[in-house]
Amino acid sequence: MTTTNASLDERLDAARAAGRVLAAMSPGEKVDVLEAVAQALLAGSEAIIAMNADDLADARQSNAPAAMVDRLMLDRARIEGMAEAIRAVAALPDPVGTISGGWRVPNGLEIVETRVPLGVIGVIYEGRPNVTTDAAALALKSGNAIVLRGSRIAARSNEVLGEVVSDAIAAAGVPPAAVTMLGTDREEMLRLIQAEGKVDLVIPRGGEDLKAYLQQNARVPVIYAASGNCHVYVDADADLDEALAIAVNAKVQRPGVCNACETLLVHREVAGEFLPRVAGALLAEGVELRVSDEVRSHLDGFADDVAEATDEDFATEFLDLILSVGIVGSVKEAVDHVNRFGSGHSEAIITRSLDAARTFQQGVDSAVVYVNASTRFTDGGEFGMGAEIGISTQKLHARGPIGLADLTTVKYLVTGTGQTR
Amino acid sequence: MTTTNASLDERLDAARAAGRVLAAMSPGEKVDVLEAVAQALLAGSEAIIAMNADDLADARQSNAPAAMVDRLMLDRARIEGMAEAIRAVAALPDPVGTISGGWRVPNGLEIVETRVPLGVIGVIYEGRPNVTTDAAALALKSGNAIVLRGSRIAARSNEVLGEVVSDAIAAAGVPPAAVTMLGTDREEMLRLIQAEGKVDLVIPRGGEDLKAYLQQNARVPVIYAASGNCHVYVDADADLDEALAIAVNAKVQRPGVCNACETLLVHREVAGEFLPRVAGALLAEGVELRVSDEVRSHLDGFADDVAEATDEDFATEFLDLILSVGIVGSVKEAVDHVNRFGSGHSEAIITRSLDAARTFQQGVDSAVVYVNASTRFTDGGEFGMGAEIGISTQKLHARGPIGLADLTTVKYLVTGTGQTR
Repeated sequence: MTTTNASLDERLDAARAAGRVLAAMSPGEKVDVLEAVAQALLAGSEAIIAMNADDLADARQSNAPAAMVDRLMLDRARIEGMAEAIRAVAALPDPVGTISGGWRVPNGLEIVETRVPLGVIGVIYEGRPNVTTDAAALALKSGNAIVLRGSRIAARSNEVLGEVVSDAIAAAGVPPAAVTMLGTDREEMLRLIQAEGKVDLVIPRGGEDLKAYLQQNARVPVIYAASGNCHVYVDADADLDEALAIAVNAKVQRPGVCNACETLLVHREVAGEFLPRVAGALLAEGVELRVSDEVRSHLDGFADDVAEATDEDFATEFLDLILSVGIVGSVKEAVDHVNRFGSGHSEAIITRSLDAARTFQQGVDSAVVYVNASTRFTDGGEFGMGAEIGISTQKLHARGPIGLADLTTVKYLVTGTGQTR
Repeated sequence: MTTTNASLDERLDAARAAGRVLAAMSPGEKVDVLEAVAQALLAGSEAIIAMNADDLADARQSNAPAAMVDRLMLDRARIEGMAEAIRAVAALPDPVGTISGGWRVPNGLEIVETRVPLGVIGVIYEGRPNVTTDAAALALKSGNAIVLRGSRIAARSNEVLGEVVSDAIAAAGVPPAAVTMLGTDREEMLRLIQAEGKVDLVIPRGGEDLKAYLQQNARVPVIYAASGNCHVYVDADADLDEALAIAVNAKVQRPGVCNACETLLVHREVAGEFLPRVAGALLAEGVELRVSDEVRSHLDGFADDVAEATDEDFATEFLDLILSVGIVGSVKEAVDHVNRFGSGHSEAIITRSLDAARTFQQGVDSAVVYVNASTRFTDGGEFGMGAEIGISTQKLHARGPIGLADLTTVKYLVTGTGQTR
């Protein structure tokens, strides 16, 4: 589907107008809208599954990888899961209207800082159709219009999902343009990310290629979901049983996600005792170890099972059962290593020393810094923030799990009695 | 002065390392550093004035406008003012280390959200040398390294100011690279705004040309200081004496700034009574009026003194003694006009009606929305936030006056007792 420039502009203007209607709705009205969407999704599940079957057939015919086909697949159970996810978002506290600050100044003006929706949010994503309803729910809850641009592989699934959602919100009194589904035309995506003034935020949910494309081309504000080269540092004062459990958990519990550990650093004083234990446990879990020469000197029993770690290994987010292992002489050295090689996502120190914990937490320049816990907890759900849009490793606006409140901005409401300067 | 790519990278790395030293300093240590800078500025004033005289001579020889020469000029009194401004920043509350949130999750993890410096901030500015020390003071106070890129017209003034500041902080224990002065080479500026990962934020303080250049070329995060097409709307329920005072104040008290009023909207019900009064007052202050046909119909006595307003006039930030004037039939129409033509900066409604005030404040999509006060109060100082870096009309990270806290980000510090997933 190709859309002309004018018609994208018109659709973005319609989305903004629809967003203004949403912005004025009460929290209760928005809960009702989301419930209507959840019910429409369940009522429409047969039609959705039929369209999804066409996408699946094409994906299989073009020999798409099995994991990709699985992510694309919708059945009754998955649609029920999507409806439940919408209800979970509906149940979150409404961030709009929160008073984030307020004060009076000497001349009597009363200043109130309140949270308001951003306006129009664009989401660009790959072949998981559940992102369509997840993102729409988060946008509706936070009073924003959303413009969705999904992957070609899920084009028909997304089209029908978009229709179901738009129809449901229209029946509930929200202009359907509040959830706008674009086609999969690449030229249109380029215009979307360059529509200054018409789009308040774009969130890409895709791989490094999409990210690089936006970094080169976007002129609207973008929040990038993170890559995570996360570290676990085992200090000289660590409880080594705890360190073992955390190092293994952070690496193997779900290696393909951004908060999994990619590098283990061990203090020289405990290297001789700890490294053989942790290497044995990790190798037993099928982890490939890439180690420095000094680490290798402590792993006589595993000489054939470990590879040499290069600087590139220490800089790599493997997203796989691979771990770089190094030795440091101090907390300071660990901090320097993390700041040099890390991506600013999540790091952990295992220690009983207050001083070491403090030095590490203060020195490491990352979104989340743990003491005596696995890096795997960096997650909106685990943080108790509810659904998240991703994890941010950038420093402006949102850092760490991106929650509902990050889809809002502030507005200052100032009340006077005729004040002039 | 031309710098090679490698040397800019090295300077940015040195700035980051210096920033880490600053980030670890206590509030009291930073106050001492700022006091040392203020004293060094006073002690170095003769040398600064001598270098500034060379810049001034060149500026005059090249027939620079008198206002530009005046902004460039430094004398003893202005340097004392710069030192006082540094001390005022030193006296502000330190934003670093503020706990912005904290909670425990069911598994016992303790999550603390704390404010930390951004890291390295770039500021690109025009020919006012006081920006050099103002910006450096704000960066030092918020624990950030700063990379300054001033205008060619002030090159020698900025060079000596940069040296004075760097020497002073070095003597106070901060690596001098925490305040890094670049040359005026344009190629180097381009590399600065494309130095992804090495610069956490760039703030341009210049005109629309600089802004457009950054919008096209920047790959690092940027916060743009605002343009302001601000509105005053006089409602049917307004106290017309109050409305008159505010409309005149918002237009004439300082017309060249971003929070001055550019458009006056009047409700049809009070147009006949209010417009002749306000037109008389504004014309007496030397304001040029550009009015709609309906407005003109109420201004029989001033027919020769008013021009016709076009849509372009309503969209223009005049920054001058010029005002567009229109009539609307309702608060809703006023809101729509503001959202169509405004720049999202500051707007005011004058009314005694709670419903009108609420409709206007809720509906207008601007950083600051006033009830019964002049738009001229949108200012860090007037808001009681102390020194500001500018006013933001963007919605991400900072909206409204950009204060010290906006030069920080959050870091989550999570403490556990061995938790794994």
